[in-house]
Amino acid sequence: MNDFVFQNCTKVIFGKNTETQAGKECAAIGIKVLLHYGGGSVKKSGLYDRVVSSLKAEGMQIVELAGVQPNPRLSLVHEGIELCRREKVDLILALGGGSVIDSAKAIGAGFYYQGDVWDFYDYKCAPEKMLPLGVILTIPAAGSETSPSSVITDEKQQLKRGLTAMCLRPAFCILNPELTFTLPANQTANGISDMLAHTMERYFSPTKNVALTDRLLEAMMKTIIDQAAIVMRKGDDYAARAEIMLCGMVCHNDSLDIGRQTDWASHGIEHEISAITDVAHGAGLSIVFPAWMKYVHRTDIPRFVQFAVRVFGIEQDFENPERTALDGISALEKFYQSIELPVRLSQISLSASRIEEMAKKATWNDSVTLGGFKKLNRKDVSAILQLAV
Amino acid sequence: MNDFVFQNCTKVIFGKNTETQAGKECAAIGIKVLLHYGGGSVKKSGLYDRVVSSLKAEGMQIVELAGVQPNPRLSLVHEGIELCRREKVDLILALGGGSVIDSAKAIGAGFYYQGDVWDFYDYKCAPEKMLPLGVILTIPAAGSETSPSSVITDEKQQLKRGLTAMCLRPAFCILNPELTFTLPANQTANGISDMLAHTMERYFSPTKNVALTDRLLEAMMKTIIDQAAIVMRKGDDYAARAEIMLCGMVCHNDSLDIGRQTDWASHGIEHEISAITDVAHGAGLSIVFPAWMKYVHRTDIPRFVQFAVRVFGIEQDFENPERTALDGISALEKFYQSIELPVRLSQISLSASRIEEMAKKATWNDSVTLGGFKKLNRKDVSAILQLAV
Repeated sequence: MNDFVFQNCTKVIFGKNTETQAGKECAAIGIKVLLHYGGGSVKKSGLYDRVVSSLKAEGMQIVELAGVQPNPRLSLVHEGIELCRREKVDLILALGGGSVIDSAKAIGAGFYYQGDVWDFYDYKCAPEKMLPLGVILTIPAAGSETSPSSVITDEKQQLKRGLTAMCLRPAFCILNPELTFTLPANQTANGISDMLAHTMERYFSPTKNVALTDRLLEAMMKTIIDQAAIVMRKGDDYAARAEIMLCGMVCHNDSLDIGRQTDWASHGIEHEISAITDVAHGAGLSIVFPAWMKYVHRTDIPRFVQFAVRVFGIEQDFENPERTALDGISALEKFYQSIELPVRLSQISLSASRIEEMAKKATWNDSVTLGGFKKLNRKDVSAILQLAV
Repeated sequence: MNDFVFQNCTKVIFGKNTETQAGKECAAIGIKVLLHYGGGSVKKSGLYDRVVSSLKAEGMQIVELAGVQPNPRLSLVHEGIELCRREKVDLILALGGGSVIDSAKAIGAGFYYQGDVWDFYDYKCAPEKMLPLGVILTIPAAGSETSPSSVITDEKQQLKRGLTAMCLRPAFCILNPELTFTLPANQTANGISDMLAHTMERYFSPTKNVALTDRLLEAMMKTIIDQAAIVMRKGDDYAARAEIMLCGMVCHNDSLDIGRQTDWASHGIEHEISAITDVAHGAGLSIVFPAWMKYVHRTDIPRFVQFAVRVFGIEQDFENPERTALDGISALEKFYQSIELPVRLSQISLSASRIEEMAKKATWNDSVTLGGFKKLNRKDVSAILQLAV
């Protein structure tokens, strides 16, 4: 186990009708709130009205900024920073999924910074402060509701960049599983794929002697896989929607990987797929992950055997551990297929001719390596994508 | 799953030599610190000197209060409150196990209260504020390093009372597994029994649809049981000591029982055993728990089958679930015996003639019931203790 420091102060409010507590939570922080959201769905569902009522009941003053898109844009972030300064808001309330939350984080961090907020995403300097942020989550996937991370796209430079800084954790998040009943099947599946990836990227670690966190992460993977079958069949099953919403938050709040090195190579490789195809992040991950596993499994066969046996309950072949390891990877592929996610580039009409370009971009022109379980250079990334053809 | 609110802001600093960071952490909070500890062991081990050096290096002013005993006393708490007020301390640093931490919590909460701090433990009112508290843990067991709880004994009235209030969570805790290398085997085993009980008391819940937390708690129990065998054989095994220290903290930080009702009946019954015999809390629990299970298992046989199969890997008897349930209880007893803990009252020379008296006290003269998995009255408690004869 590695030495570590862990702290996560986000207050989690979970359950039915909890969005009606937004006003009280916000009023405990300040008076003027920026309500930040995407488009029409929160209005159509009535969520917007319930939240505004709750804020008004507490005498909150509301400033609004709508229009967040998937892959949230830097230009809207700039607009939000201007607006928050002009209106002197005390806090931000994000109403939506990961994109809205990440956009709100960028606005809240940029609020206190004299330069361009993109400097943070360009790793020129690190944010030390963020406007207090509340979240009402509508899509369980990114885990941004308790994580210290934000991903923003500079649409002019065509750059998508992730930032992690402890000050980016929200002050509170409100999770009502009922808000996810109407999520379309493909968005549900994409979210499940994202949270499963967040868990596996913590699980496939080079750190030894991590007995507790291994088992906690296995518990998470088994639960996501079990419950996925239920929510895909019956979108308004409260119990299963609650489990999936809980999983999306817990798997990314950093409590399950204390003391272990993580490996985010699959997320890095996937970003290049969604950058050139506009495929959903979760669907890109279901293509990358099995290919990554096939390429790296010999680095640590016992770990892949443990994954196969403990997560998928595969009967171990004691004389041929690699067979068991490969059976685990097949089981993961079958799981993705069972929730109608793609597992090959051809399924999203991405030609193998683009592989070299993606491998180059993912490794910043072969100048950096990805991952920690096995360090990957341009050639490795290219080979992994070839396994996904 | 039940609705819930969860927040835990304690900063956890884990690893080798981390006690040398105490000065820096304290200096970030204030200037004058009360150093609170038990007796000679922290001086003999050199820990005291290292911590004082670290505090002095940061220019901290140190006030001291030693002498905390197991079952920490109200009189010392009163003395600590006086001292903190007179010296105008900014924070408390607890150096020890659960007793020292719980005593520090009582002092820190009493500091802000005009009446007698015992009022909190007498449930006349609830504390809303505590002096900031830092912890350097030497005994993994009680979980008080991140929990919102404190147990204090009023030696004059011979009352031992537990208090839970969110303001009682420490600001930071420092966990260095090396500090536990010299813990005697019986203290190690008692601590393991306490953390296993904290996990089981969350696991045996009447709440349905708790798939994720069930699996997380099972992960915790399996790890405690696995790693116990190693630390009992080899006290200076860093990897296993680290797992046990991590388990003691995580199992009681309230992250594993979000959304589920818990059942603290076994802790309640055990308090009566240790009150009249002075047996260690962990050794009392290893007697009470199997007896409690034998008495309540018919309330929910599938839950006990799940415990047997998932925690102890027992082959399920599908035609006779109760047999599997009982096999799980036997396996738990054998585990306790394997780390040399008692499983019967006779092993601690406690006569069956005292059972009625204990059952009466545990249920406040039959005026309250204990537990949530199955509500227990005086007669039930008495029957449970009879099963432990």
